[in-house]
Amino acid sequence: MSTTGKVIKCRAAVLWKAGAPFSIEEVEVAPPKAKEVRIKITATGLCGTEMKMLENQMQYPIILGHEGAGIVESVGEGVSTVKTGDKVITLFLPQCGECASCLNSEDNYCIQLKQSYTSLMTDGTSRFTCKGKPIYHFANTSTFSEYTVIREISVAKIDAVAPLEKVCLISCGFSTGYGAAINTAKVTPGSTCVVFGLGGVGLSVVMGCKAAGAARIIGVDINKDKFEKAKQVGATECISPQDFKKPIQDVLVEMTGAGVEFCFEVIGNPEMVAAALASCHESHGVCVIVGLLDYGVQLNINGYLFFSGRSLKGSVFGGWKSRQSVSRLVSDYMAKKFNLDPLITHTMKLDKINEAVEFMKTGKWQVLPLTFMSECLGQGKGVWESEAGKGSCGW
Amino acid sequence: MSTTGKVIKCRAAVLWKAGAPFSIEEVEVAPPKAKEVRIKITATGLCGTEMKMLENQMQYPIILGHEGAGIVESVGEGVSTVKTGDKVITLFLPQCGECASCLNSEDNYCIQLKQSYTSLMTDGTSRFTCKGKPIYHFANTSTFSEYTVIREISVAKIDAVAPLEKVCLISCGFSTGYGAAINTAKVTPGSTCVVFGLGGVGLSVVMGCKAAGAARIIGVDINKDKFEKAKQVGATECISPQDFKKPIQDVLVEMTGAGVEFCFEVIGNPEMVAAALASCHESHGVCVIVGLLDYGVQLNINGYLFFSGRSLKGSVFGGWKSRQSVSRLVSDYMAKKFNLDPLITHTMKLDKINEAVEFMKTGKWQVLPLTFMSECLGQGKGVWESEAGKGSCGW
Repeated sequence: MSTTGKVIKCRAAVLWKAGAPFSIEEVEVAPPKAKEVRIKITATGLCGTEMKMLENQMQYPIILGHEGAGIVESVGEGVSTVKTGDKVITLFLPQCGECASCLNSEDNYCIQLKQSYTSLMTDGTSRFTCKGKPIYHFANTSTFSEYTVIREISVAKIDAVAPLEKVCLISCGFSTGYGAAINTAKVTPGSTCVVFGLGGVGLSVVMGCKAAGAARIIGVDINKDKFEKAKQVGATECISPQDFKKPIQDVLVEMTGAGVEFCFEVIGNPEMVAAALASCHESHGVCVIVGLLDYGVQLNINGYLFFSGRSLKGSVFGGWKSRQSVSRLVSDYMAKKFNLDPLITHTMKLDKINEAVEFMKTGKWQVLPLTFMSECLGQGKGVWESEAGKGSCGW
Repeated sequence: MSTTGKVIKCRAAVLWKAGAPFSIEEVEVAPPKAKEVRIKITATGLCGTEMKMLENQMQYPIILGHEGAGIVESVGEGVSTVKTGDKVITLFLPQCGECASCLNSEDNYCIQLKQSYTSLMTDGTSRFTCKGKPIYHFANTSTFSEYTVIREISVAKIDAVAPLEKVCLISCGFSTGYGAAINTAKVTPGSTCVVFGLGGVGLSVVMGCKAAGAARIIGVDINKDKFEKAKQVGATECISPQDFKKPIQDVLVEMTGAGVEFCFEVIGNPEMVAAALASCHESHGVCVIVGLLDYGVQLNINGYLFFSGRSLKGSVFGGWKSRQSVSRLVSDYMAKKFNLDPLITHTMKLDKINEAVEFMKTGKWQVLPLTFMSECLGQGKGVWESEAGKGSCGW
């Protein structure tokens, strides 16, 4: 029984208004239009970005979720790079291949990202309805639904045997951290690195520093429960700012003699950005902001920190050009170049999504202001099962 | 008549106390100690850094000046890289070759720079006396004296036929700007660049952008008198912020479609640093701070500017490793790869130094807060003439 060209009814976590919990609803998912792809989502992470969105005012009703993996159910007209049955990862950051950023080898911030600001597809409409109302899309992806429609440029085809309930984290959290070390900072062999904030993305930064050959990786967090896992993935030592009377930047400069080569702020706290920059070596130190700062927040930084040559850089999706890199990262995962298991703290069914939110809000993992903490929500079961085969994990 | 090992009497511009004018005095210059070099200074620039020093509180009495060129009069024990008669350039930024910065290919901020903070030589004493009092050194160099004593690591040997009254600018202003484009920003062929502040260093940035192959170089200054020279050295267009109602960053983003690849702040104004960063392309834009910010000044920058991937970098001496690069830059000058003439606005004798200061303070060149403006003070005549030959220009 093919569903191609038909509306699919399935379950989704709908956010009806600001401050409300997620509501599990039956939604209708329209067929993909030209250059669009309909995907059976089999696993998705709950990312810190969603947590921020729960605090912000958005357009409602909306289906959140962007850290997803699934199987192509059908494709719209003119789609040439994926086909029904392909395993794919959803990309909040598209790669159109045509804009100034896509054409620049040092840039990955595809201009088509901005389509997501409309919370609608390119034609100005939604593919979701619920109880007769159109539902807004989120982050070019909307993965908190058993089916979603995404533009072809926001989909990466991956290895057919990749375990979707693991590699969904490559869709955002893992790649963001890992790439910040490898692509944005360009961590060098033998160097000393510091990672402020040891959530899911922070751990991924640690993994990236290790993969790049850093000799010393210092994890910083006020929650010492995070230290064991940080050391498991590559931190050589961990410290809590609360154990020192001095500012943490002074502690780090003392520990390392002259500051660190590479420092990562993975919290999203403006004061910590300033501390991270000050922790860097005065001339060749590079500080990367990975944490998501609130919109409009001002950084107050002593200008003199730059005098001697420090650098401060932003990083989106770890600097990866999304479509091409995600496929390669999944291959690297299959080749056991990195391990995603330490990033998965809970695996829950879709209907437990509000419990997942509570874990994020109150769980032991979140003490510093939350940036990203990836949790796989997979293993549920869809109302509708695609002909394309059952994923290794489905809601 | 050799002066080696003897005290030399010569003229110098001494600053006796804060707020006083320079006073031309006869000073005694002791012979160089181990690893030191005594130099007959034949030309020096007056740099914006000295102007800042005139406002700051320092140790007095002191001999300022750091943008110098001259001829080695004698060398102390253990000096192996220069000898009597060599033409040299003075380096406020040494290159010891042994510290972490010297050993790092991406760094030039030699730890020995910090010796200058003491305003004394390495042994904790001064080589200058005047009226029986020891006189402090400045910036590892003290070039406002007909003779000075400098550490070997702060001296670069240059081409024997180089015109010292021109290449003295390679000692600071020219190299600082030119290198900020080439080394720190790594300007790419075909790119669009913006230079905020068109003094001597700003013009040198323009030259660096041009040498790196930038397709469009936009000069920004509120003093339109500077535009002609900026265009002469490579600016493709120049604008004044006062001609627009919008903030200059909005004007530049509009002019360029999506912001510029490389932006240089060559003023030393914290608000202009923020504007320069905002003028950059949102993801691959690189902003370099070249202007000297006052110590302790805070930068207030919208953190969101970094979200999409912008970079903000400091730059010292244009990222050049001083000893090795200055010799090569002089060779490049001799090979006519760049022209220093546009940077020389006045040539004056040492005893006119207070007039030079007035030019810097009130001259047409200085309307934006001053950063660096290089003026050659050469062409005077020393009391003492070295056996090593008369320079093409001496005080």
